[in-house]
Amino acid sequence: MQHFEAAGGAGQRSVERMVGELGRLLGPCGLVTDRDLLERYSCDWTYANACPPVAVARPRSTAEVAAVLAHCHAAGWPVVVQGGLTGLAGGATPRAGELAVSLERLAGIESLDADAAAMTVRAGTRLAAVHQAAGEVHLAFPLDLASRGSCTIGGNIATNAGGNRVIRHGMTRNLVLGIEAVLADGTVLSSLTTMLKDNAGYDLKQLFIGTEGTLGIVTRAVLRLQPEPLERITALVALDSFADLTRLLVTLRRDLASSLSSFEAMWSDYFECALERLALARPFGAAHPFYALVEIEALDPAVDRGRLEAVLFRVLEAGAASDAVVASSLDDAARLWRIREGAGELITGLAPAAAYDVSMPLAAMEAYVAGVRAGFEALGIGRPFGAFGHLGDGNLHLFAGVNSREETATIDALVYGALQGRGSVSAEHGIGSLKKSWLGHTRSPAEIVVMRSLKQHLDPRGILNPGRVL
Amino acid sequence: MQHFEAAGGAGQRSVERMVGELGRLLGPCGLVTDRDLLERYSCDWTYANACPPVAVARPRSTAEVAAVLAHCHAAGWPVVVQGGLTGLAGGATPRAGELAVSLERLAGIESLDADAAAMTVRAGTRLAAVHQAAGEVHLAFPLDLASRGSCTIGGNIATNAGGNRVIRHGMTRNLVLGIEAVLADGTVLSSLTTMLKDNAGYDLKQLFIGTEGTLGIVTRAVLRLQPEPLERITALVALDSFADLTRLLVTLRRDLASSLSSFEAMWSDYFECALERLALARPFGAAHPFYALVEIEALDPAVDRGRLEAVLFRVLEAGAASDAVVASSLDDAARLWRIREGAGELITGLAPAAAYDVSMPLAAMEAYVAGVRAGFEALGIGRPFGAFGHLGDGNLHLFAGVNSREETATIDALVYGALQGRGSVSAEHGIGSLKKSWLGHTRSPAEIVVMRSLKQHLDPRGILNPGRVL
Repeated sequence: MQHFEAAGGAGQRSVERMVGELGRLLGPCGLVTDRDLLERYSCDWTYANACPPVAVARPRSTAEVAAVLAHCHAAGWPVVVQGGLTGLAGGATPRAGELAVSLERLAGIESLDADAAAMTVRAGTRLAAVHQAAGEVHLAFPLDLASRGSCTIGGNIATNAGGNRVIRHGMTRNLVLGIEAVLADGTVLSSLTTMLKDNAGYDLKQLFIGTEGTLGIVTRAVLRLQPEPLERITALVALDSFADLTRLLVTLRRDLASSLSSFEAMWSDYFECALERLALARPFGAAHPFYALVEIEALDPAVDRGRLEAVLFRVLEAGAASDAVVASSLDDAARLWRIREGAGELITGLAPAAAYDVSMPLAAMEAYVAGVRAGFEALGIGRPFGAFGHLGDGNLHLFAGVNSREETATIDALVYGALQGRGSVSAEHGIGSLKKSWLGHTRSPAEIVVMRSLKQHLDPRGILNPGRVL
Repeated sequence: MQHFEAAGGAGQRSVERMVGELGRLLGPCGLVTDRDLLERYSCDWTYANACPPVAVARPRSTAEVAAVLAHCHAAGWPVVVQGGLTGLAGGATPRAGELAVSLERLAGIESLDADAAAMTVRAGTRLAAVHQAAGEVHLAFPLDLASRGSCTIGGNIATNAGGNRVIRHGMTRNLVLGIEAVLADGTVLSSLTTMLKDNAGYDLKQLFIGTEGTLGIVTRAVLRLQPEPLERITALVALDSFADLTRLLVTLRRDLASSLSSFEAMWSDYFECALERLALARPFGAAHPFYALVEIEALDPAVDRGRLEAVLFRVLEAGAASDAVVASSLDDAARLWRIREGAGELITGLAPAAAYDVSMPLAAMEAYVAGVRAGFEALGIGRPFGAFGHLGDGNLHLFAGVNSREETATIDALVYGALQGRGSVSAEHGIGSLKKSWLGHTRSPAEIVVMRSLKQHLDPRGILNPGRVL
């Protein structure tokens, strides 16, 4: 056995002993200690601060998760919880001396009740597998992210994932009926209700949604499914001003009501950068200051398409938009979505680059983007720069090229500084370890005191994802 | 000044002193101590266990709420929190020696941002006032209850109120963007965000939604508004079997998707009792075993009405329903809704009667109602009996006539006993004081331990709504 450096002053011998005990507990494939394999568990999709864990526990059951945590709690051994490792805030990236608990073997769909529109799944199940199983019975799980093929339901819940359809279906918090989770000391809290309405006492599942694995490990969940829309209809609209963009959102929300499932805005700097670097065809003859990618969920495709086209026609006629195209095939729609969904690939290709996920009231957004851009220009940094986001949710993503660690710090300070008091430093990605020092820009000292006190109360030895969020 | 009996061993002098201090803190109209006036604050809509409070604090601001709680926390003086007093679980009914904190003067709408579809309101604002203000800018706050004219937003949040449109819009939890609340020790937690997406740290507002005032007093909230539907279209369907009722729900959910805003089921015993006791006209020539009251929110009234009629026509043609009527005017719709919304009046008129609010998977509901009814018949109790509810949410309401306190206990035991392990003893009304002893029928010992520990942690002196929920 190789030698590990133990955290928190525990000596080398005791780490060896703890690893040996875990190995006996979890069986032959239950514990990874091979140095090469450990590399796979060394960081999330930010690729920042990579650090292999001491070992990886791979429990196959809730009871095994409970046993691992009871063991670590007794020993005071810090744990990092891992799902699909697609996080963008460094929350699942190990710190020196941590044991990784990966939910990868606690995967699979346990049951699907089509009448109740509810699916019980294990935490390690990939989001794409949930989509497929729901689709087979003509239902849908509306949460959708670009990382769908790799991210897991446990991670989606722990980070309260958002994505492209929040305007219509809400965040993950709204899509979960029941949760089973294990507390730091190994206590199993099983609230696997399939009921939409259950006001019997405190709704404890809220403790585990969006708390990024710092209060417990989600092991199973009951997901709320929706009827599968007959068709998704996509359109791209070009606009001259942010005011037109906002008006279009208000008009679509009013005239299409709940069939409006996405309203993704792109500033021209993002749009041009995406076309060029992803080598995509230009959808309109000319360039425009703003673009909106619109999707509706059609109940009756002919009627709903006609309704969308009529609204867009009226808007164009009124001069409140410059151009518009409605996708006439799935291929067409995929081409339009590629401009927006290529963002991850685009930013990875730009590396080194800094990426942000903020939210603010719609009314503040135009001035915010202009202010940040002007700040970069004044300092001659942050090129290329792009802004895009889920406008319907007030969620803005930004990216900026960086040349050094110092430049990243300056860019961070500009992006978060401009936000203070009127927005959130994390709309959907979470705080993790990378945004921890900015939490005070969004939360008051009183709020942070209560968060810390809840953490201390539920995880008194501080073994669960220590140093993340708080 | 009259003499009060103090709770928790505090002497009469000290209660007098505390009341005097509160009076100075809150000013002339801020504290009610007049014996006749106190009667108004002595119980909620259950009218059970009425008991006037020692005094009523009527703060006008968050700062005053904080000062009152800091005072009570220091003195260990128990507080009962009161909104519109429309609760149905005894949660706001005082216990001997308690100070009532009424939010009635902390009322009014602070701001309404139509573009952001967000409204900031004080906790004591009545739900009907929120409806009206939203309607004036062609928006809607979709939470709707029969008590809309009396209940307050603070109470709606504290009890995570449900109502008639949960199937479409969710419970109160889904309709609140931000909350300001005061903890037991007077700490103000202000999270009045207007943003749909905000994953910066723990979502502390969840601590105050549905916890029935035991963890803090909600003082203000930001409500999420929706576009106002152009029209609501109502239909009543008569059915032969529970299987047909379930199939109708599944069909409507599939074919009308999110436009379906209500699906209210009525068993024939409820339906006949309502027609007779509320003196309503029979909507169909014959009587039927089951009825469904259906409402859709129309985007395009002509199209959506046609769509609903087409679905009902198909269902009738297939023999899966016996009769159906679609309301052709607002009066028509009101007449149909009266059969269902008259439930409160009906049950009050039956007094003494016991009323229940349970939820369970749809698949268990038919057998559950039949089992409870058979249990009553075997014992010759519980007449009249009626079952109805928000079927789309798995939420079932029951009522049963009672003749004595002992009979109530027997009926309680039957209703909750039959539920054990497969449902919730409170779908939407909460636990309050009346359902406390049944919490263990829905929540596991581990869950209750964690609830108690959260309560103890956030309210160590146990001054906030003590003895409620837990």
